[in-house]
Amino acid sequence: MYTKISESPIFKGINPGEIAHILNFIHHQIKSFESEEIIAYSGDKCDKLFILIEGSIRGEVVDYSGKVIKIEDVFAPDTFAEAFLFADDNKLLVNIVANLETKILIIYKNDLLKLFNSNNRILENYLRIVSNRFVTVTGKLKFLSLKTIKGKLAFYFMQISNKQKSKTIILDKTQQQLADYFGITRPSLARSMRELNNEGLIKASGKKIEILEMGEMKKHLRND
Amino acid sequence: MYTKISESPIFKGINPGEIAHILNFIHHQIKSFESEEIIAYSGDKCDKLFILIEGSIRGEVVDYSGKVIKIEDVFAPDTFAEAFLFADDNKLLVNIVANLETKILIIYKNDLLKLFNSNNRILENYLRIVSNRFVTVTGKLKFLSLKTIKGKLAFYFMQISNKQKSKTIILDKTQQQLADYFGITRPSLARSMRELNNEGLIKASGKKIEILEMGEMKKHLRND
Repeated sequence: MYTKISESPIFKGINPGEIAHILNFIHHQIKSFESEEIIAYSGDKCDKLFILIEGSIRGEVVDYSGKVIKIEDVFAPDTFAEAFLFADDNKLLVNIVANLETKILIIYKNDLLKLFNSNNRILENYLRIVSNRFVTVTGKLKFLSLKTIKGKLAFYFMQISNKQKSKTIILDKTQQQLADYFGITRPSLARSMRELNNEGLIKASGKKIEILEMGEMKKHLRND
Repeated sequence: MYTKISESPIFKGINPGEIAHILNFIHHQIKSFESEEIIAYSGDKCDKLFILIEGSIRGEVVDYSGKVIKIEDVFAPDTFAEAFLFADDNKLLVNIVANLETKILIIYKNDLLKLFNSNNRILENYLRIVSNRFVTVTGKLKFLSLKTIKGKLAFYFMQISNKQKSKTIILDKTQQQLADYFGITRPSLARSMRELNNEGLIKASGKKIEILEMGEMKKHLRND
């Protein structure tokens, strides 16, 4: 089991024997959950670190109309809900549900602080995980802050164009996935795509998009 | 000066004498900046903690069209850019500019880790600051993810209604501020406001909004 734990990012660089030794000195739990069992509820205080040893979990929210929306899957070996741990308002924003039979190592906040004190590596791992999570979230925020759908599309196309090093790009998402990613409805997305196409800025056919007018595209990135 | 430093959230609960003692053991700098002087550039590696002792700074970005957009002001005593510090991709996303004559205590990452080791209080303060920042950003993200403008308005009205404990609320933002906050244009915002009004869900007059149909409002929060 310590081999599996050693693969999680929080214990990166620490060997299984050392982990067994370290965990000896602090209080911790290993809990098993059945498939579809609820591990924690939205609104619960998040005062412990969850380290997935086996299986996978999902975060989901129930919206005002009662509809369940999946936010994210997390697979072993990884941690989850770790960035809220030390916040003043540390309530979970999602329900945590086991996707399948799942085993989780649970370390309470105070014991985690002891770990940080006794092992610099664990502290640095934790700081890296939280900082990386922050970078991801602010990146997404920057993206959603673009005010027009065409602006979002332009930004997205240019990102992919940079990655694929070509003005003709292959989208990595369906229209529905893109709409979800942009936080808009699918018809709104389709309309803006059509407009960019009809204005001659892109030539769209299915998942293949050719960027014809890069300069005009960039104009859509203004946030006037 | 140590009195001022002791007022910053990273040194919360530590008295000035103790701070002087602690800082004796680690490398640090105190730098002064003129009004409008650039402290750090977008794209710079963020490998140090900035603690504002005097003055104030702003984060600003230059968009693709060359327009400067202010993101945030930070006032002494506070820290800034602290959440990126331990990320793999720790590049600043904004330019940091002094708003007025400003004095900053700078502690490099490695020295900060030494501080964390020598003083648990500083570690816990730092963890709380970063977690709180994360909670703020994910809250904003959740909000921007609502797909329709009416959904955003409904969410916003209901938040204020909860806070002001009344169905008749006074908005705390102008239409332009609201549009910026929602990441949309002002005309789009005005149109959706008018529609909610004409549909009889709200009665809007200036900054005063009366919520008439709470149930119908909640329907707009669905993310179908």
